[in-house]
Amino acid sequence: MLRLDSADAGFAAAFETLVNARREADADVSRDVSAILARVRAEGDAALADYTRRFDGHDLETTGWSVSATECRAALDGLSRDLRDALELAATRIVAYHEKQRPVDSDSVDGAGVRLGARWNAVDAAGLYVPGGRAAYPSSLLMNVIPAKVAGVQRIAMVTPTPGGEINPLVLAAAQIAGIEEVWRVGGAQAIAGLAYGTQRIRPVDVIVGPGNAWVAEAKRQLYGVVGIDMVAGPSEIVVVADGRNDPDWIAADLLSQAEHDPTSQSILFTDDARFADAVADAVERQLAELSTRETATTSWNANGAIILVPTLDVAMPLVDALAPEHLELAVDDPDTLFAAVRHAGSVFMGRMTPEAVGDYVAGPNHVLPTGRRARFSSGLSVLDFMKRTSFLQLDNGALHAIGPAAVALATAEGLPAHAASVARRLVNHHGKED
Amino acid sequence: MLRLDSADAGFAAAFETLVNARREADADVSRDVSAILARVRAEGDAALADYTRRFDGHDLETTGWSVSATECRAALDGLSRDLRDALELAATRIVAYHEKQRPVDSDSVDGAGVRLGARWNAVDAAGLYVPGGRAAYPSSLLMNVIPAKVAGVQRIAMVTPTPGGEINPLVLAAAQIAGIEEVWRVGGAQAIAGLAYGTQRIRPVDVIVGPGNAWVAEAKRQLYGVVGIDMVAGPSEIVVVADGRNDPDWIAADLLSQAEHDPTSQSILFTDDARFADAVADAVERQLAELSTRETATTSWNANGAIILVPTLDVAMPLVDALAPEHLELAVDDPDTLFAAVRHAGSVFMGRMTPEAVGDYVAGPNHVLPTGRRARFSSGLSVLDFMKRTSFLQLDNGALHAIGPAAVALATAEGLPAHAASVARRLVNHHGKED
Repeated sequence: MLRLDSADAGFAAAFETLVNARREADADVSRDVSAILARVRAEGDAALADYTRRFDGHDLETTGWSVSATECRAALDGLSRDLRDALELAATRIVAYHEKQRPVDSDSVDGAGVRLGARWNAVDAAGLYVPGGRAAYPSSLLMNVIPAKVAGVQRIAMVTPTPGGEINPLVLAAAQIAGIEEVWRVGGAQAIAGLAYGTQRIRPVDVIVGPGNAWVAEAKRQLYGVVGIDMVAGPSEIVVVADGRNDPDWIAADLLSQAEHDPTSQSILFTDDARFADAVADAVERQLAELSTRETATTSWNANGAIILVPTLDVAMPLVDALAPEHLELAVDDPDTLFAAVRHAGSVFMGRMTPEAVGDYVAGPNHVLPTGRRARFSSGLSVLDFMKRTSFLQLDNGALHAIGPAAVALATAEGLPAHAASVARRLVNHHGKED
Repeated sequence: MLRLDSADAGFAAAFETLVNARREADADVSRDVSAILARVRAEGDAALADYTRRFDGHDLETTGWSVSATECRAALDGLSRDLRDALELAATRIVAYHEKQRPVDSDSVDGAGVRLGARWNAVDAAGLYVPGGRAAYPSSLLMNVIPAKVAGVQRIAMVTPTPGGEINPLVLAAAQIAGIEEVWRVGGAQAIAGLAYGTQRIRPVDVIVGPGNAWVAEAKRQLYGVVGIDMVAGPSEIVVVADGRNDPDWIAADLLSQAEHDPTSQSILFTDDARFADAVADAVERQLAELSTRETATTSWNANGAIILVPTLDVAMPLVDALAPEHLELAVDDPDTLFAAVRHAGSVFMGRMTPEAVGDYVAGPNHVLPTGRRARFSSGLSVLDFMKRTSFLQLDNGALHAIGPAAVALATAEGLPAHAASVARRLVNHHGKED
């Protein structure tokens, strides 16, 4: 864990190093992924079956290519009442938040008589990747699918690796709650290729979302343009801005909730209270000792954690903007004043009673957020990621006479005579001349 | 040019071939581009200067690295009155249309006492690529920059190759009208790398937009995630749906306005009138003979043009959706009925007096649109491409007690104890117990 003090001479350089540190694994998977994509494109299901035998250790002809609705229903029925209620509360709240993201169409006529508008439609089909093993989170499934459902996407195809044929019942239960009717037992880059290109069994989709390992992420990156994708995702991160009036144990838990995700995760605390900084550092060590995820969390905290002392919290805000964190907690009495200074953050958790984890599950906003400083230019997953806008235009004779001559002038200047003619012929004829 | 009749036996197969035809050059530029990006990242300006000497044939130390405000002003002052008025009309109308795209922030408290909201901010800096030579269109410059300006982007850095040091004065005039204050004389993949990574002279940007050749497009694709990009762009296309009551010359001009862009452009006509189909085919040939862009337009029309006969125009609409065209003209008396059946199109031009070219220049909607069937999942360039959304959340003690227990249950089920603890510690303490 790194300790910095913004009053120290070397602070600017040390902070810049922190901002630019690349935590993403530089696995050279690009060539492997290209080969997998090309083979799935050429061979379809045969390639999927072969890769699944090799990487997941089961035969799709034996285990079945897809998971039935009966299995999903059984998984949901097998949940404890508490867990089922929790998933349903989460789903209900996520739906409510995302319904407000539905865009509004427009259609109006301006002063020149030009009718102008835009109409939004959902994509026809979305693909959802759900990782197998440790990172198979039902909460992520809900966060990825619900915006698509709210957008009005008619078909959602889920893919997930089932190593040895095994699948996490919590994930199936969440799929059932989310209303997913198509679940394929394939994973990795090959599953992404299957969704993008289509195979004999799997019809192609238009957008692919969902977290995955380096191979899955690279496959999505390479297929961006063939399909839409949610984002290029990297390791998770949290920045906490806290004064000395917080419970150090609460803040330590918040930092560790990020650290336990992955060894590459990052947790950073800004505070204006040196004694509080020490108290949080101590609390982190105490809590780490008791945590079942301590191996991951300790690696992450030691390698990527930081506590940064600032003279006043408003001094921290430009530094936070430079980090453009995925998650930002403002643990103070008046978070709005600090929030007003934030331009770049995925999601902000305001006040002392808003631990980031509550947003991971049940608050409503999406937990699929830009990482690795990408909040400078991108947003969390939303209904808009599953929709697209068609602009439209309608002119009558008067409107074309009002603005058409300018189009003719510009087309001519750009050396595009057919562009000019397509407007000019309509202008001429309506003046009563024939061309 | 391809002639199809939907009544023919082989139609379905022939149409599917048309839909899946790949017109994009499969230039294997990926490795070259990777090398250029890596070198610019490592060497900065020295690499830009070297590539500019090799590819553009001039020495940046002699010609100057950037174009001055004085040069841009002089270019604008040198325009004819007509052309200047046309550019200014275009800019005014594009601003007016895009101002309606500004997103609205939200901030409310729900029934559980949870404060939920979203706040939009512009990116700090946008980079704009403007091609040199034939495709240096002032209209494209306006279409790319104005949404950024409307979004509130504070810094816009334009890059453009100036082969032999020469630059198109129309482009500089448009830059002046658009208020661009930073114009670099670098082009190609190296310019994209300079914008994304930053160099000694050029500060990095957050989003890069603008059309370019295969190297530029590949550089943007490879840097997607380091920066935001507008889209993966391919050859331009138009689909015209027209009944027999149109002037064949008008429709022929509309088809050619796409064909003259590039040999890989595509123009397709759907009509329910066989005689009209013949008349348009004849008109295309007649107009081609007179067109100064006939070489390009003829190649495009012969290789990629199509006229498709359908029994009624509503039969054409699912076929149009399968093509998901960049531009769609509905040249009928009642275009709204046909438009209601369209789900996938970049921009729609309604009625007989709305040639697509009017939208290229002065109507207001953006002419940067998804090509190559990408209207299935993506939209034209908009203000949103230069903004990002920060979601936020605030709970008090009551709200955390209302929804926190569900978060604890889900975190525990997912095997993330620090997530659970960060919520549970706040619940426990506020019940009066100390942990």
